[in-house]
Amino acid sequence: MATKTATTASAKQSIAILGGTGDLGTGLAIRWSKAGHTIIIGSRTQEKAQAAVDHLAKISPKTPATPMLNADAAKAGDIVVLTVPFAHQVSTLEGVKSALAGKILIDVTVPLIPPKVGTVQLPPEGSAGKRAQLLLGDAVMVVTAFQNVAAHLLQQDVHIECDVLVAGNKKVARDRVIELVEEAGLRGWHAGPIENSAAAEALTSVLIQINRRHDISHSGLKIVGQEDH
Amino acid sequence: MATKTATTASAKQSIAILGGTGDLGTGLAIRWSKAGHTIIIGSRTQEKAQAAVDHLAKISPKTPATPMLNADAAKAGDIVVLTVPFAHQVSTLEGVKSALAGKILIDVTVPLIPPKVGTVQLPPEGSAGKRAQLLLGDAVMVVTAFQNVAAHLLQQDVHIECDVLVAGNKKVARDRVIELVEEAGLRGWHAGPIENSAAAEALTSVLIQINRRHDISHSGLKIVGQEDH
Repeated sequence: MATKTATTASAKQSIAILGGTGDLGTGLAIRWSKAGHTIIIGSRTQEKAQAAVDHLAKISPKTPATPMLNADAAKAGDIVVLTVPFAHQVSTLEGVKSALAGKILIDVTVPLIPPKVGTVQLPPEGSAGKRAQLLLGDAVMVVTAFQNVAAHLLQQDVHIECDVLVAGNKKVARDRVIELVEEAGLRGWHAGPIENSAAAEALTSVLIQINRRHDISHSGLKIVGQEDH
Repeated sequence: MATKTATTASAKQSIAILGGTGDLGTGLAIRWSKAGHTIIIGSRTQEKAQAAVDHLAKISPKTPATPMLNADAAKAGDIVVLTVPFAHQVSTLEGVKSALAGKILIDVTVPLIPPKVGTVQLPPEGSAGKRAQLLLGDAVMVVTAFQNVAAHLLQQDVHIECDVLVAGNKKVARDRVIELVEEAGLRGWHAGPIENSAAAEALTSVLIQINRRHDISHSGLKIVGQEDH
């Protein structure tokens, strides 16, 4: 009977993580796989994708993942996640653009430009998220998230204090990403349109400064509220 | 004996609040006056400055303040605070520039551009703080702070949950402002160089979105940290 069938908060989907060879992509793969989603790891070569899957199997034997070229991964994923360094954001997106139409792209890109990673250096478009949305056009629902989360913590089986600011032009897409944030064990917040990705992207350099200058590790942000008295 | 003399964490100074006619300026005046500092309220006309002081006396009878024209206030203050709307930031600073040499300017400006105050719209310089520093030159130590704090809460005798990100190029100036943040009852953090003011300025629009879209009032941010496990 329908009423007795266990229903999940969100459908289990196939999630393609482009650049899933880094710490952040690996951490998200582990957490979303645990939540029941199917994971595809995309990379620029089949060898690198395979190496990432092998690495993932070593640090998390219970996380199955399929290695693919980025373009194939973008085609295969119901939802696509971009976790490449800032310098590769545009070239990676150009290579997968046609496969993203009608989909949500979760862009985790932070515009850190070495050596001054502790200094905010937003791109001329205002943010990496805005740059992705302009490049991909309105057919793709770009949503940015996870820029402030310590990648190492994502890979560990711990509660993460840091909240996630979720920016994007379509509320329905932000809602879906907030569900995915929660399935990864974090709290997500509607941060507004894609322009507002600037806040989370800039915050990453601020958190780097705080880690340097205060007696605190893996600093993050928590959204708090309070009533008038 | 010197060792028995009570010493305060910071010297009591004269603080000139330019645009101290608004909620934020009033709130800071109340809290810093309580901490022992002398308050000057600056405005564009002597009448407006007097009206602000009268208003302050009404909501906080124990907060003495001296009304002055902005230029005189900037001269008289050991530390100068700018709390005018974004549209008046440049013209106000141009009028007081010569009085600020060698001083700390605490710039609270948030680049909110109506009607889309929930959308991040940072200026071409990258942030209002950077714009102030470029305009004033290196002789003035611009430090930005308080952009994310609900002005109404500052005026009330309550603990404020929201932390304060303190950006500026000189560490000694940020240290001083962090002391003043703490004297106002809040927690301040070294956010890095003036470019990093972009994070706090952009966050204000994000917090406006969160107030709209989540069941939370006066949302703010708290910096949290955690160790590896």
